[in-house]
Amino acid sequence: MPVTYLLTHMTWPEVEEALKTVKIAIIPLGAHEQHGPHMAESCDSVLAEEMGKRLTEALHPLALMTPVINMGVSPHHLHFPGTISLEPATLIAILRDMVSSLRNYGIRNFLVLNSHGGNQSTLGVAAGILSTELDVRFMYAKTTASAKDVMDRLIDSRLYGHSCEREVSEALYLAPWLVRQDKLASGDISEGDWRKLRPGNPIQGFYYYEEMTRNGCIGNAPAGSPEIGEEIVETAVSRLAAAARELIEP
Amino acid sequence: MPVTYLLTHMTWPEVEEALKTVKIAIIPLGAHEQHGPHMAESCDSVLAEEMGKRLTEALHPLALMTPVINMGVSPHHLHFPGTISLEPATLIAILRDMVSSLRNYGIRNFLVLNSHGGNQSTLGVAAGILSTELDVRFMYAKTTASAKDVMDRLIDSRLYGHSCEREVSEALYLAPWLVRQDKLASGDISEGDWRKLRPGNPIQGFYYYEEMTRNGCIGNAPAGSPEIGEEIVETAVSRLAAAARELIEP
Amino acid sequence: MPVTYLLTHMTWPEVEEALKTVKIAIIPLGAHEQHGPHMAESCDSVLAEEMGKRLTEALHPLALMTPVINMGVSPHHLHFPGTISLEPATLIAILRDMVSSLRNYGIRNFLVLNSHGGNQSTLGVAAGILSTELDVRFMYAKTTASAKDVMDRLIDSRLYGHSCEREVSEALYLAPWLVRQDKLASGDISEGDWRKLRPGNPIQGFYYYEEMTRNGCIGNAPAGSPEIGEEIVETAVSRLAAAARELIEP
Amino acid sequence: MPVTYLLTHMTWPEVEEALKTVKIAIIPLGAHEQHGPHMAESCDSVLAEEMGKRLTEALHPLALMTPVINMGVSPHHLHFPGTISLEPATLIAILRDMVSSLRNYGIRNFLVLNSHGGNQSTLGVAAGILSTELDVRFMYAKTTASAKDVMDRLIDSRLYGHSCEREVSEALYLAPWLVRQDKLASGDISEGDWRKLRPGNPIQGFYYYEEMTRNGCIGNAPAGSPEIGEEIVETAVSRLAAAARELIEP
Amino acid sequence: MPVTYLLTHMTWPEVEEALKTVKIAIIPLGAHEQHGPHMAESCDSVLAEEMGKRLTEALHPLALMTPVINMGVSPHHLHFPGTISLEPATLIAILRDMVSSLRNYGIRNFLVLNSHGGNQSTLGVAAGILSTELDVRFMYAKTTASAKDVMDRLIDSRLYGHSCEREVSEALYLAPWLVRQDKLASGDISEGDWRKLRPGNPIQGFYYYEEMTRNGCIGNAPAGSPEIGEEIVETAVSRLAAAARELIEP
Amino acid sequence: MPVTYLLTHMTWPEVEEALKTVKIAIIPLGAHEQHGPHMAESCDSVLAEEMGKRLTEALHPLALMTPVINMGVSPHHLHFPGTISLEPATLIAILRDMVSSLRNYGIRNFLVLNSHGGNQSTLGVAAGILSTELDVRFMYAKTTASAKDVMDRLIDSRLYGHSCEREVSEALYLAPWLVRQDKLASGDISEGDWRKLRPGNPIQGFYYYEEMTRNGCIGNAPAGSPEIGEEIVETAVSRLAAAARELIEP
Repeated sequence: MPVTYLLTHMTWPEVEEALKTVKIAIIPLGAHEQHGPHMAESCDSVLAEEMGKRLTEALHPLALMTPVINMGVSPHHLHFPGTISLEPATLIAILRDMVSSLRNYGIRNFLVLNSHGGNQSTLGVAAGILSTELDVRFMYAKTTASAKDVMDRLIDSRLYGHSCEREVSEALYLAPWLVRQDKLASGDISEGDWRKLRPGNPIQGFYYYEEMTRNGCIGNAPAGSPEIGEEIVETAVSRLAAAARELIEP
Repeated sequence: MPVTYLLTHMTWPEVEEALKTVKIAIIPLGAHEQHGPHMAESCDSVLAEEMGKRLTEALHPLALMTPVINMGVSPHHLHFPGTISLEPATLIAILRDMVSSLRNYGIRNFLVLNSHGGNQSTLGVAAGILSTELDVRFMYAKTTASAKDVMDRLIDSRLYGHSCEREVSEALYLAPWLVRQDKLASGDISEGDWRKLRPGNPIQGFYYYEEMTRNGCIGNAPAGSPEIGEEIVETAVSRLAAAARELIEP
Repeated sequence: MPVTYLLTHMTWPEVEEALKTVKIAIIPLGAHEQHGPHMAESCDSVLAEEMGKRLTEALHPLALMTPVINMGVSPHHLHFPGTISLEPATLIAILRDMVSSLRNYGIRNFLVLNSHGGNQSTLGVAAGILSTELDVRFMYAKTTASAKDVMDRLIDSRLYGHSCEREVSEALYLAPWLVRQDKLASGDISEGDWRKLRPGNPIQGFYYYEEMTRNGCIGNAPAGSPEIGEEIVETAVSRLAAAARELIEP
Repeated sequence: MPVTYLLTHMTWPEVEEALKTVKIAIIPLGAHEQHGPHMAESCDSVLAEEMGKRLTEALHPLALMTPVINMGVSPHHLHFPGTISLEPATLIAILRDMVSSLRNYGIRNFLVLNSHGGNQSTLGVAAGILSTELDVRFMYAKTTASAKDVMDRLIDSRLYGHSCEREVSEALYLAPWLVRQDKLASGDISEGDWRKLRPGNPIQGFYYYEEMTRNGCIGNAPAGSPEIGEEIVETAVSRLAAAARELIEP
Repeated sequence: MPVTYLLTHMTWPEVEEALKTVKIAIIPLGAHEQHGPHMAESCDSVLAEEMGKRLTEALHPLALMTPVINMGVSPHHLHFPGTISLEPATLIAILRDMVSSLRNYGIRNFLVLNSHGGNQSTLGVAAGILSTELDVRFMYAKTTASAKDVMDRLIDSRLYGHSCEREVSEALYLAPWLVRQDKLASGDISEGDWRKLRPGNPIQGFYYYEEMTRNGCIGNAPAGSPEIGEEIVETAVSRLAAAARELIEP
Repeated sequence: MPVTYLLTHMTWPEVEEALKTVKIAIIPLGAHEQHGPHMAESCDSVLAEEMGKRLTEALHPLALMTPVINMGVSPHHLHFPGTISLEPATLIAILRDMVSSLRNYGIRNFLVLNSHGGNQSTLGVAAGILSTELDVRFMYAKTTASAKDVMDRLIDSRLYGHSCEREVSEALYLAPWLVRQDKLASGDISEGDWRKLRPGNPIQGFYYYEEMTRNGCIGNAPAGSPEIGEEIVETAVSRLAAAARELIEP
């Protein structure tokens, strides 16, 4: 990888030098939660970090990447072994401490690059709180949501979004070790009230993931491929980079 | 209005009687914020309460409506005189206290009927917290979002959603006193970074409303009418009622 | 009603205009709690709001009334169906958010007009916190306590104060729909430790309302009348207006 | 002093023995705040502790006294050197920790014996919170308020209550070292809005003590005497003991 | 005792005068917890206060002593009757309120003189928080830890530190009434995992005190004497005074 | 590396299988803070994670390692570019969420393996809170502190402990990419009050790191070597493993 400002890899004099050009901090945010029988539980955090590296590189020398937040808000997965869930207030506290610390060094734009849907509401709340409380511009994005058109073209499942062919594809491209290729399975779906509470219905609400799927994944993971992953990821990275550039360049 | 279980209007023996059939509490949630030159600042709260009455009636005798929460999360409007904004933590505390109190009387399903977009993230967070902490089913819905197809048919503005023809129409149908008919104005839009942060873009983030509109409204309010309002409202109420019924009936 | 600055009914340009003369914000505060077999549970909130309108009118154009806080601190009523109780910390958070928001527009005097005894301690605490933290003058008043002499003259019960002839009278004058005239009942009093903990005893403390009264009210509600209500209310409004005027006029 | 259960003076086996009869814990609560030129700043805490000893003795072997809480809620005195003020939330946290700890040993009745008016609202709030949260009976009393008739008879000042002849008298009887007899002074009163916010007026609110008195005291301290103190204190102790006994005895 | 600035004993004009020379506030901090069969439960608080007086005197007129914090963090003792434990957050809140109050009068150096090991972690946390949040120098010291060499010379027990010969000796010198001379007992030690979690082992962790000792004390209390106490205390006071002087003198 | 239970690398069925033997969760905890001119800012987190892997392997199949907590409590480093500091309350919230989540799967022993001195007080506080609140055994250890005798033998600096020859040696052995070999520098020490507040002095307290060292490190980094690192690390791992085994084996 060419030069990229990864805070974890830098010394303080290197950070001091980088700050002469840096205008935005990229904060990768994932989750630690079950991903069915075929993906490791760190999936979201690893994908967020990998995407973060690519985005930071694409924005070089305007961007600097912080340590990944490697756990997220996952109460709906807590009945599958190994899942760790942060309270929303804990995640906001972490974000406040990070933004508050980095603001000391003159950074005023923050972009949380989030790979986990369960974090989105908390990020919406954090955006209002931290922007007004700390007088910064706090922004957030789903890692690959901006490549929705690519997904529509390449993915056939009607219900997907967790350890599905999209996520497996992204992992096969970005971090193949996350995938157990010999265990790839489609979602083992149960019927229940969750269908009536999904986005797109008149009413939303909380449900546990095991009400929806017995094996913890949805969609059709075996249909994933590194090629699909590449197209989704590269499209999203270039769109995110273009969008970020427009927001931070004079 | 025929018989409806409005908690504000009932005595405790009447509540005790109603609880024999009630399966769900409807919590209307609005905001107190500027709505441009042509709508009163209580707009969202009044609309939520009026919608709540209709939904409660449609679900009778399964539903009971609580007092309206008449302020919401509106930091983006705080630079227009009169706006009052609750911290997200305050709104969650109110919801916790309401759910925790009503659970004493055997109610286990809660539906927040929310008219204000700025509350949605907080409701998403609250759903996870309160469902797991209090062992209830906490659900939420935007008042008229389920009538999106009707809006697509009847509304021409590309940018709308606050004190626009949709909201004016809903108010003309539900509570015409909210509207200053002689002051109806289109949004006086400013260009700025807000366009790059709207839903649908790769990146989301906080911006103040005056960055987007000088008069505090968007869309084309003069195009509103009670007829449009009626179609949106009645469509949404019947869809919400059907959806709620499916969730609470055995 | 003549012109009165009710924030719920105003547009932001109207608020901007009003702020040229407004010196004080009136915050009506009630409760949502059982009021025996003959009063609706919103009683306190409705009375606070109605009193607030009259006081705001009497102070016009110096005062502006905010949205009512329509729930309060009522843990002692939680065993009667329908009661909703806010934690004291929740009520203080609401007040902080309201004061903090309205201070943006130049208001420095705040008067909480409170109709519910259970809120008084919390208001005493809030006064110290918010006055020093936000650098405003935070004041509070019981809606009709200043007409104590009128009550002493017109009310015979020795134990009264909740859904009694005083409260019924106030409601018959201000909002008669709150009263079930065919259900009016005296308090069905139980003996117990509560007597030893009432104000006036050496020791105070918490007790549940059902320890004191089986039907949820005390006093002699059937003795209430709109005439008694009028005398109490009008006396209190004029005394409150005079007191407020002395505090905010130069 | 005859045998009294003072927790500070006991070993754990002695506590274990005492718990066979103890039914109530007395928690003395004072303040650390300026008391004008003639009283030491620990005045309230010392008086609360001394009264607590007498009350505990009078209730022996039913009562046990905890360590004194030697600071209180005193924001109104913070402009006089030496005053320390606890946030109300801090005081409630201390009380919660004390009650929660002592409940482990089987105590279910708690009486806070409070000598400082500024703590009363916080105690009212604490009573509701801790009684319901910890399932105990949380009670509170002003140290000598139950001897109001004695004060009416022996005290001439119309405005008194802080470092006045009442408080000096109580100190001369209970802990004379608190009083600088050569510095005794009447309150050096300033006129201001505080008069309109005192109890008994239609409106209450926060004011700083220096707005009311230049030397930090009110009333007529030189009129105090140990005889007056004795009568007030002994009357109050016997009334408190009688009231407590009625509440804890079967 | 010669002149010493004890805040509890001073009037506000005396504090105002003292502040002309005072550079540091000494905050004595103890605990209220079981001390076996031979020491009163206030032991730590009394020793901290007595040490505080001596240190304040030694630093006169540079130091002023605040009221003692007479309860501390003692969850490990909660299974012995009478122990009261503060949550760490409560203790930090108390310290914040004290420092924040006294900073009003120009004091910028704070030294918590702590006699209880269970408070040390909380003080370490408080030092970082309060120093940065309130812009003061927040320091802390164990009362007699600086006399470690004296203890090594005079004490034979390998396991000591709570109601042992060291603590009994300090009490016999500073406040002999704390000691039940006829009950002096060595620790009645149980074997268990606590040995593996003591300081000096690779791993630390929480254990309850009754896992370690049946009678609540460790070491060999009967070996204590006022002479040992005097040497430990006087050595520590003079070292603490010297260290403090170096830190606050120009 | 042979088989090791790293939660980040496992699927939920693999976790379910592992839980048949796992008795303890290892939580690696580091920091993100400046480490002078010659070490990357993620140093502590990387070392904690690497040590964690070795310890988990040594305890296999009794132990499972969680995701690393890759930021810590570092307010003293906040004036060097790039440092991120968590509030102690944030770190405790993260730990509570982790322990609370993993307790769902039957784990009752938790060992935080901490590489950063600035976290130790917070861990001491967390141990008391989480052990009693969640009914688990919460333990913690400094990564290499148990090899103190090895350090005494191999390290000459009198002042060391941050980006010194010890830490560089550990990194050269565990993760050499952390070290800029061409930038290795001794601490550039300033004189100041920090010397009087270091452990071992009578008084402790907070100071900023730049008061002590101009380049952000102490000790003599150039004296480090992978051989020293190996001896320290391997000694510590085997001692930690032995200690943990004794605590969790029947």
